Amino acid sequence: MNLADLIRHPAEWRRGSGPMNDVVFSSRVRLARNLAGMPFLSRCSRPQVAEIAETIRQTLMKLALGGETLYVDMEQAAPLDREVLVERHLISRQLVEATGPRGVAVAGDETVSVMVNEEDHLRAQVLRGGLQIDACYAEISRLDAQLEGRLDFAYSSKFGYLTACPTNVGTALRLSVMMHLPGLKLTGQIEKALRAARDMHLAVRGLYGEGTEAIGDLFQVSNQITLGRSEEQIIAEFRDQVVPALIDYERRARQVLLDGRRLALEDKVQRALAVLRAARLISSEETLYLLSHVRLGVALGMVPDVTAEQINELALITQPGHLQKLAGKSLSPQERGQRRAEMIQQRLGATERT
Amino acid sequence: MNLADLIRHPAEWRRGSGPMNDVVFSSRVRLARNLAGMPFLSRCSRPQVAEIAETIRQTLMKLALGGETLYVDMEQAAPLDREVLVERHLISRQLVEATGPRGVAVAGDETVSVMVNEEDHLRAQVLRGGLQIDACYAEISRLDAQLEGRLDFAYSSKFGYLTACPTNVGTALRLSVMMHLPGLKLTGQIEKALRAARDMHLAVRGLYGEGTEAIGDLFQVSNQITLGRSEEQIIAEFRDQVVPALIDYERRARQVLLDGRRLALEDKVQRALAVLRAARLISSEETLYLLSHVRLGVALGMVPDVTAEQINELALITQPGHLQKLAGKSLSPQERGQRRAEMIQQRLGATERT
Repeated sequence: MNLADLIRHPAEWRRGSGPMNDVVFSSRVRLARNLAGMPFLSRCSRPQVAEIAETIRQTLMKLALGGETLYVDMEQAAPLDREVLVERHLISRQLVEATGPRGVAVAGDETVSVMVNEEDHLRAQVLRGGLQIDACYAEISRLDAQLEGRLDFAYSSKFGYLTACPTNVGTALRLSVMMHLPGLKLTGQIEKALRAARDMHLAVRGLYGEGTEAIGDLFQVSNQITLGRSEEQIIAEFRDQVVPALIDYERRARQVLLDGRRLALEDKVQRALAVLRAARLISSEETLYLLSHVRLGVALGMVPDVTAEQINELALITQPGHLQKLAGKSLSPQERGQRRAEMIQQRLGATERT
Repeated sequence: MNLADLIRHPAEWRRGSGPMNDVVFSSRVRLARNLAGMPFLSRCSRPQVAEIAETIRQTLMKLALGGETLYVDMEQAAPLDREVLVERHLISRQLVEATGPRGVAVAGDETVSVMVNEEDHLRAQVLRGGLQIDACYAEISRLDAQLEGRLDFAYSSKFGYLTACPTNVGTALRLSVMMHLPGLKLTGQIEKALRAARDMHLAVRGLYGEGTEAIGDLFQVSNQITLGRSEEQIIAEFRDQVVPALIDYERRARQVLLDGRRLALEDKVQRALAVLRAARLISSEETLYLLSHVRLGVALGMVPDVTAEQINELALITQPGHLQKLAGKSLSPQERGQRRAEMIQQRLGATERT
């Protein structure tokens, strides 16, 4: 398997199906581990970093992650391939920007990826569509058990798993959901909702994690506290209280729009769809902005001839890395804008007079 | 005849036909006259103003202005009717806002209108589609001769016709063309072109004359100098030098766009058309803005299924006064936005997936 195979279609988890998928785009559980007897990366020599990478890579290739495993050596990967991996949420921007021996193992179905030598020696994630925290956790626990049988991780009986950044020490478990919150945005309540989320000890980030903007009304909401609580407590609170509260805020906001501003909402949705179908040049950012409105329209039954799956596929493949990888070459911003517009029209249909 | 008859269709001159109609929307020639032996309006008593209004009204109703003549008494006209007359360019905003006995005589085909007691006792205008300065002038000369035979106008052998504002003294003749200049706007050359126009002693104004904004890239360009030149000299310079120079600027700008930024231009045109067809709520200003881009697309052959006539009719009837007059009642801004969007869709067709 290689990246060219992956890129033709979105991963199953990214099709926008799954429980609560009107608001929750996807769920993710991540854990961080470091090899015992090795320093954290900031204190490693290059030979040590290489040794860590090789040890973990060999272990990962023996595991069944889900479908055939692809290992990408980040030192050798082409810039475009790195972009594609970021856009598919299989690696972080930090892994791209790091130096030295590092890589990622990706399950063929893209539900599992394991970054090697990002901030920690090993960072594994499991992804699922919709709200599926339990399924993600069960899967990452299986993976953790397999890894534990083969590798010796740094662990303190007092603190739990040791990680490079103190905010991850303890369970080293991070739960997150990607939420689509256009209702809160359009009703002007988004800041209030995000403050409430932060009061519940959640971190709220943009589409590509820490420090990135919330493009297309997509917000990554994750737990902050990893220390002093059991994994089960953390999961239960996140799954049963925190995420449902945010889902409820968003659904109420949508209802407010439907009850009081239905026409303005239809206007926004129909304009967005019309511009997507008519544009001859369009940026990645505008595409995500417009797709967000169409996605809301789809969720509210206002757009009978478009599916959430079409929207989600477009949100993925119209990104610069995918666009260029699919074209098989590097493209200027103008060329990208044109090709992006063509791609959207192929999938959503061009406009035509009735 | 009454306003309800007028309102169903745009006047012939406003359909956007006529010479040079890719750039020149319409031509207008106006003259100002004041009755001899009566003070200017600012110094009249109310009985004098009433006497002037009645004298001129009676004279006008005996003339053949073109089709059946409609006289509207502005003191008695409903606010919506006044708006409709402004939107049809048959009266000025100043006539609406003035007080006292005043009115307008409108030819049934709307090519001629004569305002009574606006700034001067009498202001007559002739309108034609496209660049038709000569035809406008011939028509207003016929009207002037008819008026001269029936009324005695204030005239000085030294200065010529006397008018309330010194800038009109002399020939009291004002020529103007409404120009559509989206090419100069899109290439960022509009300010330069308007400066050049001012250097040629032209006044440049917005869609509704002095002090109004140039909405929809429509600019009213008119001569400034009325004193010390013959009417023939003024007309020849305006028709043969000044307006052709501006037409040439605009056409070159469009060619620059076609040669160097064709895709960006098509993008703008197609987006504008798509939004017009898809919107469920739309303001008058946005409508004119978008129609301007579609009109440019029509002029450049990019929009085969829409005609300039459709665009020009929409630009007229989607204005607040027309919209409400056609609805037969006063509407809130939200209701207007909705009805405007419906009207546009009826005429341009709604969007549909291919």
